[in-house]
Amino acid sequence: MHACIIAVGSELLTPFRVDTNSLAITERLNTIGYAVRLKTIVGDTVDELAQVVSSALVWADLIVLTGGLGPTEDDVTRDAVARVLQVPLEEDRAVVERIRARFARRGMTMPDINRRQAMVPRGATLLDNANGTAPGLWIERGRTAIVLLPGPPREMTSMLDAVIAERLAPKSGGAGLFRRVVKITGRTESDVDQQAQPIYGAWTSRAIPISTTILAMLGQIELHLTVRAESRASADAALDAAVAELRTALGDAVYSVDGRPLEAVVGELLRARRATIAVAESCTGGLLASRLTDVPGSSDYVERRAVCYSNRAKTEWLGVTEALLARHGAVSEQVAEAMAAGIRSRAGVTVGVGVTGIAGPGGGTAEKPVGTVAIAVQTDDDARVRTFQFIGGREMVKFQASQAALNMVRLLLS
Amino acid sequence: MHACIIAVGSELLTPFRVDTNSLAITERLNTIGYAVRLKTIVGDTVDELAQVVSSALVWADLIVLTGGLGPTEDDVTRDAVARVLQVPLEEDRAVVERIRARFARRGMTMPDINRRQAMVPRGATLLDNANGTAPGLWIERGRTAIVLLPGPPREMTSMLDAVIAERLAPKSGGAGLFRRVVKITGRTESDVDQQAQPIYGAWTSRAIPISTTILAMLGQIELHLTVRAESRASADAALDAAVAELRTALGDAVYSVDGRPLEAVVGELLRARRATIAVAESCTGGLLASRLTDVPGSSDYVERRAVCYSNRAKTEWLGVTEALLARHGAVSEQVAEAMAAGIRSRAGVTVGVGVTGIAGPGGGTAEKPVGTVAIAVQTDDDARVRTFQFIGGREMVKFQASQAALNMVRLLLS
Repeated sequence: MHACIIAVGSELLTPFRVDTNSLAITERLNTIGYAVRLKTIVGDTVDELAQVVSSALVWADLIVLTGGLGPTEDDVTRDAVARVLQVPLEEDRAVVERIRARFARRGMTMPDINRRQAMVPRGATLLDNANGTAPGLWIERGRTAIVLLPGPPREMTSMLDAVIAERLAPKSGGAGLFRRVVKITGRTESDVDQQAQPIYGAWTSRAIPISTTILAMLGQIELHLTVRAESRASADAALDAAVAELRTALGDAVYSVDGRPLEAVVGELLRARRATIAVAESCTGGLLASRLTDVPGSSDYVERRAVCYSNRAKTEWLGVTEALLARHGAVSEQVAEAMAAGIRSRAGVTVGVGVTGIAGPGGGTAEKPVGTVAIAVQTDDDARVRTFQFIGGREMVKFQASQAALNMVRLLLS
Repeated sequence: MHACIIAVGSELLTPFRVDTNSLAITERLNTIGYAVRLKTIVGDTVDELAQVVSSALVWADLIVLTGGLGPTEDDVTRDAVARVLQVPLEEDRAVVERIRARFARRGMTMPDINRRQAMVPRGATLLDNANGTAPGLWIERGRTAIVLLPGPPREMTSMLDAVIAERLAPKSGGAGLFRRVVKITGRTESDVDQQAQPIYGAWTSRAIPISTTILAMLGQIELHLTVRAESRASADAALDAAVAELRTALGDAVYSVDGRPLEAVVGELLRARRATIAVAESCTGGLLASRLTDVPGSSDYVERRAVCYSNRAKTEWLGVTEALLARHGAVSEQVAEAMAAGIRSRAGVTVGVGVTGIAGPGGGTAEKPVGTVAIAVQTDDDARVRTFQFIGGREMVKFQASQAALNMVRLLLS
């Protein structure tokens, strides 16, 4: 089953906005077996949009359009689709009343312009929009289903979920594309691929073939496993076995097989061990703290964090001695250890983390270039320290350092 | 002049990758007067790609294709373009030698598969690639120029810059689309639009008409001003005048007219006043600190930050009294003020900031629902405190709170 996604809106043709709706749409369509063959982004121009829709109608089983359902003259999706299908647009009285009532609930009168949102191509079915005024539309033409959805993600996604549950999933009979994402950190792409390729290379010739893509991102590698299967149960069996093979080969470099980010995995470990954590970070400047607290409920285990740039702050807050700073320099494993020990004892927590480094662009030396970061992690009965050399600009160094620190905590607790 | 951008690659049709090349391409093409009318994302399938190219050839003055120039069977961009233009692909000996030499410099032998990258549609001009093996291609057919570039941004952008400088800009004679982005925070979209619309509404009928788009993003509003002008000088004159009008109308709600983010504007103010800052943040959990330190050179003015979740940490580190916490609750203006005062005096800085709130999903009450955030900002001779009610999930609340805190610092220093 082949799908085409069309994002409508002139703002999506500027350098400032990228169409991200299509990622959420693709993910959902894949689960019911639709492969997206083409994505198109077109401005608010009825001729151009009609041209794009009519090309897609030739080959697509499903066309999903997002955007252009607002009340203004610029909102031309309804018009373009009606033109391609050669059906008239007719005002739907019930929709007018619904929009009027929506305005009334907020003590407002519906502007006349909003009547445009009640114009429906003849033969279309209305799709309820719980979060906005624009209803969606469902139209079948030959073998092709055409779905019109509003652009705002909050409105679009819940409407698409309803369309899938009520109209598309029943057709697919449970078959679909199923995925697993295996997340790895602390290893290079070529290193991971060298170990994993002989394993996933053999999967393509199985009874249920699994295709694998390796994606290298900042501070992590992802292996995406995809199968096309008749049911979720058979897909799960194949994918679970495949993931287990990768885990065996890659060991503790694998930190997540269910989509969870590293900070959530670390949070789970802390919670399971009834442990608490406090971090003292210099070069990551709060990013490590911020990532830890992105996890809902993290105030149960995150005690406190100190971000200290100056040596004075390191001395006063964390008890890092001036002698140590003078002897080894602020960016050193000794100072990272002293920061971890200082924050741990002062906050009275299970795990203390110290991060000190040079995020750049300034501050580098021949001996300690930009990207040099020392990280220490300590508990009552264990301690680790390591110096990393990260590449890239300031934000890249900060992210990689926060990733490495989280990973050291994970490995210490595992 | 109308342009079409085609991104080639099956990975761009998965839920995991979005085409971002097109933003950089659009920005560059706009500066020489090309408007992007359509963007298409297509997989590594020669039939489908040929179909897309041949549709664009009907109307586009310029077609930019990215991706699909690698050495594997999946890389079909050369084949698709040759098919559409009905010209043969021929091996270019000089290109083979260049690729061979590139491998040799790394002590490697060129794999035979890389000869594919030397296949050139007859009549095409080669575009040098300083950062990779795949050369780009330039082909003219009727009024349309077709440019083939590799997908990796590092290779693509420098090649596109060369194409623009050597081939496209001379045609445009300095004319182009020119832009300004006016950034606003602390106001709602409808509020901004009500004040700004009467002003920018009049711009469309000027000698050099200016078109304006209003974009509402999390924690900020952007007004994008665009003119089509014969030269940068005349565009600048028109845009400078327009920006000045908006500044007069919107006052200090405007924080940037040159693209700088809020943390950079605040950093500039701190630097200009030789001021230093320290922040004590609870609900933002390090995000405020992290944003401040995203700015290169920020260690000149950022002294230290404390992130305290527990009341004990607030008491020990910041001197917030237990009586105050008991009387007003941890999330209160009084506690925010005490946090700001505590961090300011302990760190010995010019500006102290205290943030305390409920980021969710737990922790809300009827009186203080999720999204309630109290923020205090203090200097020697001035102090402000305010309670906000933000919408959205945990990360949205954190971001909006950091934005509001930065803005309070900005207004205090301005």
